[in-house]
Amino acid sequence: MIKLYHCMSARSFRALWALEELGLDYELMMLPFPPRMFKKEYLGINPLGTIPAFFDGDTFMTESSAIAQYLAERYGQGKLNIPVDDPRYGAYLNWLHFGEATLTFPQTLVLRYTRLEPEERRVPQVAEDYKKWFLGRLRGVEASLEKTSPWILGDTFTTADISVAYALMLAENLNMENEFGPNTLAYWQRVQHRDAFKRALESQQEAATAQGIS
Amino acid sequence: MIKLYHCMSARSFRALWALEELGLDYELMMLPFPPRMFKKEYLGINPLGTIPAFFDGDTFMTESSAIAQYLAERYGQGKLNIPVDDPRYGAYLNWLHFGEATLTFPQTLVLRYTRLEPEERRVPQVAEDYKKWFLGRLRGVEASLEKTSPWILGDTFTTADISVAYALMLAENLNMENEFGPNTLAYWQRVQHRDAFKRALESQQEAATAQGIS
Repeated sequence: MIKLYHCMSARSFRALWALEELGLDYELMMLPFPPRMFKKEYLGINPLGTIPAFFDGDTFMTESSAIAQYLAERYGQGKLNIPVDDPRYGAYLNWLHFGEATLTFPQTLVLRYTRLEPEERRVPQVAEDYKKWFLGRLRGVEASLEKTSPWILGDTFTTADISVAYALMLAENLNMENEFGPNTLAYWQRVQHRDAFKRALESQQEAATAQGIS
Repeated sequence: MIKLYHCMSARSFRALWALEELGLDYELMMLPFPPRMFKKEYLGINPLGTIPAFFDGDTFMTESSAIAQYLAERYGQGKLNIPVDDPRYGAYLNWLHFGEATLTFPQTLVLRYTRLEPEERRVPQVAEDYKKWFLGRLRGVEASLEKTSPWILGDTFTTADISVAYALMLAENLNMENEFGPNTLAYWQRVQHRDAFKRALESQQEAATAQGIS
């Protein structure tokens, strides 16, 4: 049985969403954010203290975009991925990594230095530097969506979309959606209409209520 | 012909190293660092201004760990990767992503706020926060290398090693190698003895000299 440790709408949402896209069974364990502060026992499960923590038999993973790719390759039967010999394969891997390493990490600095740190440790300059950094990289998404539609690689919805679109979800949570270009905004709206996306939102809400996590 | 845009010992070293491991032909274009400041024409090649920029026919990529995986899957004939049905497959993808998203990005903050920014924009608190962050995550590498040797997945050297070991190379450049645990230090030394690693170092040096980049 697949088990996923997750915080509400955090990066681990990518894994949850991929599970829903593939219709797989899973157990969802909700944690308060950040778990290394509010649920110290979690360090016994994932010594890094980060989320997600993902278990599938003997497989243990902590990188959300890697988990999405793993699920697609292992269980997708051709769904959610691009085959190695397809001309889009390089672009597929690139967006998969880009969504996390390039689009999500800079936003965690905005989050940290405007909200998570206590007042005296907040650093508006750094939050502003990385907001600018994120928005600069987001222009690459906007330009690409001019050429590919409805999804980031064209007709095929893949884990690359899950990786990139989660970065947009986080940006919306940080009130940056008014900075999305028109292609990016339309893409983000299309993504939210997917049944599996909606099921993932419901799934985390139900699990949070059942487990007493707000 | 594969073409790689690269700055001396920057992240794009992962792609260069993978090319050398696989014995592929490539053209290496050296740039001053950071290229978006010192070589503005580069924005015509990669509008993001980041390195690497990688071209293989119609394939264009900018994420260094993704390029390493692409090369292994497309040209490796079983070298440098782990097959999907192998029990180590999840760990393979996880380390591949972890090396960049979790181990490299935090170091770029140390670099930026201690060296790259002009004096008045340096932020020692943030450099210290992310040095601590990096070293915390590095303990995960140290613990894993207690169980797997000589490489991060055991007997098989893969692009996951290229991804993780580049983060160690950057850490050494930032004078953090004295913080490596014994397993990490031994691993980093083994990596540097690989012929392809040495060839990649020579290759960037030769190209830099030929192209007048210091």
